[in-house]
Amino acid sequence: MSFDLVLFGGTGDLAWRKLMPALFQAFRHGNLPADGRIVGVARDDLSDEAYRNLIRSRFDQVELSKRPRAEEFDRFASLLHYLRMDLSRPQDYERLQQLLHERQADTVVMYLATAPNLFTAVCEQLAAAGLNTPRIRLVLEKPLGHDLESNRAINRAVRSALDERQIFRIDHYLGKPSVQNLFALRFGNALFEPLWRREHIANIQITIAEDLGVEKRGAFYDNTGALRDMVQNHALQLLCALAMEPPIDAHADAIRDEKLKVLRSLKRWTPPAMDQHAIRGQYAGGRIGGEPVRSYREEPGVSPESRTETFVALRAEIANWRWAGVPFYIRTGKRLAARDAHIVVNFRQTPHPIYAVPVGAANKLVINLQPRDGLELHLLAQAENSRHAARSPIPVLAPVHLNLDFTQRFGSERVGAYERLLLDVIDGRLNLFVRSDEQEEAWRWVEPLLHHWSRDANGLRPYAAGTWGPSASSAMIARDGFCWSEEC
Amino acid sequence: MSFDLVLFGGTGDLAWRKLMPALFQAFRHGNLPADGRIVGVARDDLSDEAYRNLIRSRFDQVELSKRPRAEEFDRFASLLHYLRMDLSRPQDYERLQQLLHERQADTVVMYLATAPNLFTAVCEQLAAAGLNTPRIRLVLEKPLGHDLESNRAINRAVRSALDERQIFRIDHYLGKPSVQNLFALRFGNALFEPLWRREHIANIQITIAEDLGVEKRGAFYDNTGALRDMVQNHALQLLCALAMEPPIDAHADAIRDEKLKVLRSLKRWTPPAMDQHAIRGQYAGGRIGGEPVRSYREEPGVSPESRTETFVALRAEIANWRWAGVPFYIRTGKRLAARDAHIVVNFRQTPHPIYAVPVGAANKLVINLQPRDGLELHLLAQAENSRHAARSPIPVLAPVHLNLDFTQRFGSERVGAYERLLLDVIDGRLNLFVRSDEQEEAWRWVEPLLHHWSRDANGLRPYAAGTWGPSASSAMIARDGFCWSEEC
Repeated sequence: MSFDLVLFGGTGDLAWRKLMPALFQAFRHGNLPADGRIVGVARDDLSDEAYRNLIRSRFDQVELSKRPRAEEFDRFASLLHYLRMDLSRPQDYERLQQLLHERQADTVVMYLATAPNLFTAVCEQLAAAGLNTPRIRLVLEKPLGHDLESNRAINRAVRSALDERQIFRIDHYLGKPSVQNLFALRFGNALFEPLWRREHIANIQITIAEDLGVEKRGAFYDNTGALRDMVQNHALQLLCALAMEPPIDAHADAIRDEKLKVLRSLKRWTPPAMDQHAIRGQYAGGRIGGEPVRSYREEPGVSPESRTETFVALRAEIANWRWAGVPFYIRTGKRLAARDAHIVVNFRQTPHPIYAVPVGAANKLVINLQPRDGLELHLLAQAENSRHAARSPIPVLAPVHLNLDFTQRFGSERVGAYERLLLDVIDGRLNLFVRSDEQEEAWRWVEPLLHHWSRDANGLRPYAAGTWGPSASSAMIARDGFCWSEEC
Repeated sequence: MSFDLVLFGGTGDLAWRKLMPALFQAFRHGNLPADGRIVGVARDDLSDEAYRNLIRSRFDQVELSKRPRAEEFDRFASLLHYLRMDLSRPQDYERLQQLLHERQADTVVMYLATAPNLFTAVCEQLAAAGLNTPRIRLVLEKPLGHDLESNRAINRAVRSALDERQIFRIDHYLGKPSVQNLFALRFGNALFEPLWRREHIANIQITIAEDLGVEKRGAFYDNTGALRDMVQNHALQLLCALAMEPPIDAHADAIRDEKLKVLRSLKRWTPPAMDQHAIRGQYAGGRIGGEPVRSYREEPGVSPESRTETFVALRAEIANWRWAGVPFYIRTGKRLAARDAHIVVNFRQTPHPIYAVPVGAANKLVINLQPRDGLELHLLAQAENSRHAARSPIPVLAPVHLNLDFTQRFGSERVGAYERLLLDVIDGRLNLFVRSDEQEEAWRWVEPLLHHWSRDANGLRPYAAGTWGPSASSAMIARDGFCWSEEC
């Protein structure tokens, strides 16, 4: 199978940090089809050779153990080409067209690793140059719009040029092995599905915590906030994977149809719910790993009066037969106590307790996403090592957990998120990409909150960097009689 | 709380190997009530001091790290006393009565660690001497009879002297932490009960494998066989713990009522079933751990024409709503490939497979009893480390398992089986002891098989020592489309 991968933004940050390393890994793992060409596109005036050297210099910066051997990199570099383009000039698309035409690869991937404000224009130009035939695939990176209307505008423009099946919208969370395993866990195992419903589950918690601040993205972030940056896309995709009905098969539309149904079933926001069940915070100064860190408003690029949220905690409900009444708690934020993304499925307590158990003890399944990638199944078992337990009239139970570390199990040579997604684009698998209607439905759900917050001057709560966010987040969950995983 | 523990057979093998070490552990763990007296009873003419020295010599033989310090043993030894008795002489029971009367302990435990043929006579003598008041507890060790009739005879004699609530019939398997955890797993966790039924479970396997031969028990064993020695008691108790309905509480009769219901629900043997679903074998010579070992018929004390089974594999069915149609496979034997007791709960396959999975792959819960003590939950997860998997159109799943090692979790200072059971007797907890009706019902189920085998000269199959028994055992399970855990 032959492919051309055209990398718009070929000298940019995403190409540099994520895409080239992922392509190299795919090559090294023997997963990249041999008959391929990777064409970097940018404004700079570079020869193929100069571009290869530029990319080589990138690999010279990675840690020694992961650095490719010269000969290995040379074989990879022979796939690399370069095309200088001014994305506003139709003639340059003609030159691209010629470059691609001379080879007639089975698949041509257009990867828009560029500023999002170029998406619409590039799509129009591609179509005008005839670069919208069925063998073309288009890859778009977030942010795809700033709200429902701008998202729909992008989707309209892209779809006027290409069929939905040619469009690969990346949510890199879906590329993570741990997230794919979430689907596999639910639909590849007979064990969980009977339990995966309101009768047996008390609540589900999704945490995506970062200890980093906004780093160099201050100006972008200040215009975005945590709700747009993390909830509308990543967190809602996780929620869909957790809540969806079993798909009829493992193909893209079967899965995306079910995810869409979840998004459509999300209980809409009412004004009281927006105040009670949506908490936003902004980090103040504090300490991370013992070191003092500045507040969000002191970050470069951030307004000193910024009212942008760097933390969100939400209580969502899914109004369908499976989940009615089961709260789904979502929280995400920057400068939290740890870099830690995980899901906790809290099962109900035993209906009729006959043992002595610790207060509040119940079964839970913890799905660790990062930095660890694994499963923990928390149970209760007989604790007979204490004097109290040894002579108790009723057996005394203590918490234990079964453990599975995926990295340990599958080794370090795992397929990373971008490697996975790039291979999927080349091979035409849409499973892990987001359909436009999903995206729009997610915007439709978060937008009332965005509007409410933009009008309400009061709700933003400061929190000390290095904590788990404002205490209102704990209070929100406590009102339901539950607690966040680290508090229980 | 004060107690007197009278150990009939106080110089015998069981006292020596199991009871004294367990009592010492209970003492060392601080679990033994301080105001206690342990009275060894035997025919020998010994002073208290001589008895203490005899017991001390026992501890001098254990490995150095577990040997008590002299001062520690001295404190324990102060609990030890000795009474010389001829168990056929009424006067000796009078002397025992006086010894106990002078102290009036809250609880008096009579532990019959003697030959079983003495049980009936000792009970009668105890009653005649007035040693059957409510503070008396009687402990009986297997074998309690050789068949239903002899078992009922013992139970009748014992119950004419004492109330059922005063009788502690030991099945030391129930004292194992791993077996108590089986109850805790099912009834202390909300997670398993909804899955624990015919709708979700394909079959359950109980394996109690020993690599040892009959050792010094040849004469006893040759008159007993694996069905009596292991199935009628230990294996059926495990089956009860696996199959019983949730008890109304954790007290003894609630649990024993439910176990009894399981035994009563066992599908009775028909002549065709006895040939198809009950396999018996006898070990021939072979190799264990690389070393040659002799055949069963060459063992000391065993008849050279012996037709006693040293291996049994059975297919049982429980005729009730929860388990109808689910086979429970039981196998046990001597000189098998490993010392390994475990339970495998094989769940059904996913009703509608949407992923690529290895043939026959399904979820299973493995409950390891010995030599390891722990849980393994076998699942399928996405395997993205292979080239094939990375580019498969449908996600490829691979087996993984979550793991829990109880010894690791609870430390090495766990309460051992005999320590547990002795403390239960002293405190009066009957949960882990077998009621007479359970025992009789178990005999009622195995007896047709015993009769059939005693009449049928053909069914005994030789197997090489160091294997997993005769191939007929594999064939039996294969007819259902399943396989033993080590074969799958």
